[in-house]
Amino acid sequence: MRELGPEERLDWLRLARTETIGPVTFYALLRRFGSARAAIDAVPRLGRRDVTAVTRAQAERELAALDRLGARLLCWGEPLYPKPLEAVEDAPPVLTLLGQAEYLAAPIVAVVGARNASANGRRLAQDIAAGLGAEGIVVASGMARGIDAAAHAGSLATGSIAVVAGGVDVVYPEENRGLYDAMAKHGAVVAELPLGTEPQARHFPRRNRIISGMALGVVVVEAAAKSGSLITARFALEQGREVFAVPGSPLDPRCRGGNDLLRSGATLTENAADVVNQLGPLLHGAPFVPPARSTTERELPLTVPIAAPKPVSVDDDSSLDLILEILSPTPVAVDEVVRQCQLSAAAVATLLLELELAGRIERHPGNLVSRR
Amino acid sequence: MRELGPEERLDWLRLARTETIGPVTFYALLRRFGSARAAIDAVPRLGRRDVTAVTRAQAERELAALDRLGARLLCWGEPLYPKPLEAVEDAPPVLTLLGQAEYLAAPIVAVVGARNASANGRRLAQDIAAGLGAEGIVVASGMARGIDAAAHAGSLATGSIAVVAGGVDVVYPEENRGLYDAMAKHGAVVAELPLGTEPQARHFPRRNRIISGMALGVVVVEAAAKSGSLITARFALEQGREVFAVPGSPLDPRCRGGNDLLRSGATLTENAADVVNQLGPLLHGAPFVPPARSTTERELPLTVPIAAPKPVSVDDDSSLDLILEILSPTPVAVDEVVRQCQLSAAAVATLLLELELAGRIERHPGNLVSRR
Repeated sequence: MRELGPEERLDWLRLARTETIGPVTFYALLRRFGSARAAIDAVPRLGRRDVTAVTRAQAERELAALDRLGARLLCWGEPLYPKPLEAVEDAPPVLTLLGQAEYLAAPIVAVVGARNASANGRRLAQDIAAGLGAEGIVVASGMARGIDAAAHAGSLATGSIAVVAGGVDVVYPEENRGLYDAMAKHGAVVAELPLGTEPQARHFPRRNRIISGMALGVVVVEAAAKSGSLITARFALEQGREVFAVPGSPLDPRCRGGNDLLRSGATLTENAADVVNQLGPLLHGAPFVPPARSTTERELPLTVPIAAPKPVSVDDDSSLDLILEILSPTPVAVDEVVRQCQLSAAAVATLLLELELAGRIERHPGNLVSRR
Repeated sequence: MRELGPEERLDWLRLARTETIGPVTFYALLRRFGSARAAIDAVPRLGRRDVTAVTRAQAERELAALDRLGARLLCWGEPLYPKPLEAVEDAPPVLTLLGQAEYLAAPIVAVVGARNASANGRRLAQDIAAGLGAEGIVVASGMARGIDAAAHAGSLATGSIAVVAGGVDVVYPEENRGLYDAMAKHGAVVAELPLGTEPQARHFPRRNRIISGMALGVVVVEAAAKSGSLITARFALEQGREVFAVPGSPLDPRCRGGNDLLRSGATLTENAADVVNQLGPLLHGAPFVPPARSTTERELPLTVPIAAPKPVSVDDDSSLDLILEILSPTPVAVDEVVRQCQLSAAAVATLLLELELAGRIERHPGNLVSRR
């Protein structure tokens, strides 16, 4: 993949920052219209609701602010964009990045775990992270206190990436300011959301999918049942990544999640060597093979325009109503919608885009849609 | 299987207590001669070395001593002899038993682990043993201090079996006298070796094969690398039993063995429910199906005489020399010996028995033999 030109980056940023256009819609628009610019032009014509891409001036202001901060924009498919993350269906179209960008192109393993970690857990996380670093592996984590902070501390000298839930310039939690400063200088801080965004509860799962998505595997060190680390592990499984878990005493609730993962087939991990042995060829030049599900529609370079099917009239209300009638709050495969409404796949794609931009339907990974 | 008559028990005890006749040879003789009595009569004719079964008087003295102690003899195949143990190739032909004999016929799970166990490990062992007891499962262990003692303490009220390495009347270690007394009264103490035998290092692995052999599964709670508990787990695997391991911190050397077992496929176990769920049907009326290897020659009731092949002359030195030449200190399959010496399988069996009684060869599980 090539680096985007300045105009194209600006268009990507405008489209990606537009309200109601999430990653899945972003890529759908790109496939449908061939370029971000064409999609931006088409959006107002498509939507029932008043959807307009953010303005060129707004996007330019964000780029200028990133520049002042010493941060940069990284678009899907660009050389430094993590290859494993490219294969994730709802990968962020744009990332902002502070620090050492080249770490994102290295083999990455995530090390995550509990905030209220035990001293032993923190020591294990730090040792495993340092051991991975010694093998040339960059460590990704979430810069939370506890295990995350220990993982960053262990890998700061060899390569460490913090994926944050808010803007790349927002320090959270405040007690991690020292770590944040060190990461921004010697490691890398990565964010999906715009500068200045304060992280909110709903941002964390989306952040976790990036941590697992950029990694070849996720190591869970201490994780209670139903914890955020288990969400990261679940994303990892969905994304076809290796899951590693450190075993612990059944009497320690912080080990419950890890032991449950082991029960479900995660690789038992006592040190970095256990991770390296399991990942094996993925670490040594073998190309990352993304999981089957996500590749189908993403193999084409996005910059090659796809021959557009004959557009369906957006005034064709009966077709829109037909599709809305078929849909329900339970996600259904787009293929199934095509079969049921007896329109062409291209027509359905256009109608779904329109409904999406109008906020009437929701996209889900696996090419599923549901009615809002 | 039926209980043996008084005369038959006496014969079994005489043959089983005879020097150079281990369990594998015991069953080979029984198969060859049809009864213990016939084997006792044949032994002096077979051996090059002066091998005679212990006398009737000696055996009667042992039975009388057991009686005075309130202990009893249990022979392979008798109703109370543990069914899973029957399927083990080198199962003890006779066991001595003090305490509640009926526990041996119940579903048994072994709980074993480190002598120098942590307080948490002991608590887990006790909790798991008590939980198994609540499900009607009898717990077997080795009455060592640490995990074994905790397992017995947890199951004493519901059913606990201590398999000791020495005689059933020998308290070892001395600090366990209180536990021994309680086990002899409320639980069961089981031994393979004669009364008065002081346990020696070489006895412990043989004892461990009985613990795993009588159990449907073995739970390892804390076990260092290369510990006796891992030997028990290895026996369990060889015997086709389930192996359960409690996970623990990689920083605790006492958890190394258990974590290694988990890595090799043992069932991760945090509590009794994990064991019960895994054993499932084996616990609820489904007959125990012994592993394939051990069943081939053991399905016949031992009391049915097997049609004896035409005996080979024991004076046929050339045949004996031929077999000795084929054998080496590395164990080899008896089938292979038959192929190489071009004698009938029956002739080879008789010659091997003779060499065995003469102390020239050694039998190994899996129908293997080696030259001493």
